[in-house]
Amino acid sequence: MTAFATPPISPLRISFDPATATIEPTGPILTRRMSDLEGLFADQTEWRRSASGDDPVVYTVTSSPVPELDRELPQSITTILPGDCGGEFHMTKGHQHPDPQGEIYLGLTGVGGLLLFDGERTEWIDMAPGVIGYIPPHWAHRSVNVGDEPYRFLAVYPGRAGHDYQWVLDHGMGARALRSPNGYELAPYESA
Amino acid sequence: MTAFATPPISPLRISFDPATATIEPTGPILTRRMSDLEGLFADQTEWRRSASGDDPVVYTVTSSPVPELDRELPQSITTILPGDCGGEFHMTKGHQHPDPQGEIYLGLTGVGGLLLFDGERTEWIDMAPGVIGYIPPHWAHRSVNVGDEPYRFLAVYPGRAGHDYQWVLDHGMGARALRSPNGYELAPYESA
Repeated sequence: MTAFATPPISPLRISFDPATATIEPTGPILTRRMSDLEGLFADQTEWRRSASGDDPVVYTVTSSPVPELDRELPQSITTILPGDCGGEFHMTKGHQHPDPQGEIYLGLTGVGGLLLFDGERTEWIDMAPGVIGYIPPHWAHRSVNVGDEPYRFLAVYPGRAGHDYQWVLDHGMGARALRSPNGYELAPYESA
Repeated sequence: MTAFATPPISPLRISFDPATATIEPTGPILTRRMSDLEGLFADQTEWRRSASGDDPVVYTVTSSPVPELDRELPQSITTILPGDCGGEFHMTKGHQHPDPQGEIYLGLTGVGGLLLFDGERTEWIDMAPGVIGYIPPHWAHRSVNVGDEPYRFLAVYPGRAGHDYQWVLDHGMGARALRSPNGYELAPYESA
């Protein structure tokens, strides 16, 4: 039954506006506020103050209608708003793929970083419009806005990959991106 | 042995220039001339004349270094040069994925069409910069340049999908894109 729970998807013409992260036709839209990001920022006192205060939107994810199913190749646009929490730049929760599959991020607006961690090695890719960040299978990944404008990127990923957020809470990401006089600096990861 | 014949790929920062279809760092580059496209255009007399004459480049495919292996997600940029063969617009060979996997094409420059055929149904997606054409699993696909400029698109596809070109020679694509006074028209498929 499961394999036929969703009818096969038809060919689709999907248009998107990089400047607004709208996708037409659109799928689900997810909003992550500061209060959704417990245990991620190093400065927990500042996180608690922000989450229980104005609780700002940190990022949104707009998906295309292509479903997260085996053999499909869904897409989404993530917008990370500029800002920091105790000097640590706004970032996504980060996740590992339970089913190890490669993924690409394509920069659309602003400047950001793609932080990758395989449990031992940490990598950082500077992202900008026209840059593809390649995430190999087995590498956990998180995105960070290190600029003053919204950082947006298009993600393309196999529908069977899945999202394991707990892995990042358990293992960290190997580094943190902190505001510095020259923009950003990467600091060793310490538990929140 | 096979699974370890190629070492795991590391995270990569890949930049590309939509105007020239260059990818940095680059992988293999493939060139298809008219003589490489036997049996595809309806007007075989005109095809033979062109292929044995100046034999023009019809399209090129520049790949990123991400390999076509299970769990990887390679990318490529295809450039179809403007032109036609006996009134039938320049097009790619077209293929089916032996391992049915979804794929996306993202328009970069020019205008084109994405022709899809599942053996019964034919679909056509008008492509332009900023448009994603979604190719579901089980749909053969071919790209066509219906304009006067190079039509370029970025493809993202699971490395395990593979390319079956013979399927298109055996089954056709359900329709052909012909030059018309208003630009293009789709005609019923007839064997070459």
